[in-house]
Amino acid sequence: MTGKFPNTVINRLTLYHCILVDYIKNNLDTITSSAIAALLKIDDSQVRKDISLLKNTGKSRVGYLVSDLKNSIEKTLGFERPKNAFIVGAGNLGMALANYNNFTDYGLNVVALFDNDKNKIGKKIKDKEICDIAELPSLAEKLHIEMAILTVPMAAAQDMADFLTKSNIKYIWNFSPSVLDVPDGVEVWNENLMGNFLQFSYKIGK
Amino acid sequence: MTGKFPNTVINRLTLYHCILVDYIKNNLDTITSSAIAALLKIDDSQVRKDISLLKNTGKSRVGYLVSDLKNSIEKTLGFERPKNAFIVGAGNLGMALANYNNFTDYGLNVVALFDNDKNKIGKKIKDKEICDIAELPSLAEKLHIEMAILTVPMAAAQDMADFLTKSNIKYIWNFSPSVLDVPDGVEVWNENLMGNFLQFSYKIGK
Repeated sequence: MTGKFPNTVINRLTLYHCILVDYIKNNLDTITSSAIAALLKIDDSQVRKDISLLKNTGKSRVGYLVSDLKNSIEKTLGFERPKNAFIVGAGNLGMALANYNNFTDYGLNVVALFDNDKNKIGKKIKDKEICDIAELPSLAEKLHIEMAILTVPMAAAQDMADFLTKSNIKYIWNFSPSVLDVPDGVEVWNENLMGNFLQFSYKIGK
Repeated sequence: MTGKFPNTVINRLTLYHCILVDYIKNNLDTITSSAIAALLKIDDSQVRKDISLLKNTGKSRVGYLVSDLKNSIEKTLGFERPKNAFIVGAGNLGMALANYNNFTDYGLNVVALFDNDKNKIGKKIKDKEICDIAELPSLAEKLHIEMAILTVPMAAAQDMADFLTKSNIKYIWNFSPSVLDVPDGVEVWNENLMGNFLQFSYKIGK
């Protein structure tokens, strides 16, 4: 489960990756370490040191080849093979995330959504169908899905996490503000978007 | 800019608030400190201590009145008066956030979106119009908007931050993975959703 790079390096590599995705969208072919450093307001030497840890970075006379460096970081971060995931909970947040096309840029492929609301089941968000939650275990097995993006209300989150782990889901990206109990071998990553906003809101004051 | 509670308390209060929003959606009128503690897997005494710092918490024989406790936390976190905000950048993420109805539950009111794409300007997301970015300064002044949710591509983020601060925007919730330079008196709150995912992705491995 633990990689060979420390979290601080991984954090920076993810930021470099974001820059590279942006460069590709803007049809820029090369990038220098100092350009990356300037965007992130860190030291050029730090950027070069991080990149020196990678393989096949496309180093050339005029900087790094954007696509090579991006591929290299993707290999390091382990998403050259896209991860397929279900969104569990087709409420506002689940819908918003299903609408967010950019996930595929980061090796995340949302395959379908799940809900227990009969009025939602069968509808489509972009090209993704909202399926009956009862079908999740069989679909997860059939499609070899190991990751769920959990966007159900907080009160339902633990029960749903139990249901997911029984369905052999191994990775839960948890957008509900719950602290989930999961068995060994299951990884949870918490994302409390509105909690973050409330902290900002408090900082702002009235 | 700094409040009287430490960040750790604010963090927990935001989580309590999320629980209370959930309770209200499920038509539950009262809540006990031990129910909150159980959901968050923290000590009951910690919850009671935090709540004792608040005023008018609706303490009763059977627990706290959900609506009173929620109001009390909202007063403490400073969002009884909703904060109006613009979304700047009507790309995938900006659209997704504009589609996310729940913001209003947390005192955040998205008034309009802005973009420079002529094909998008004039269209509506829910009831929010996508306006020409050139109109932002005058609309911000007219509508007294002080907060922007920044969802432009990374390469455009700093220029846009400069433009926003010149338009008297004081608070930027920055969803682009950029480190923004802003003048004194402007607050930036960074939210790197995909960076978070990439760290999770790395943890997962292949």
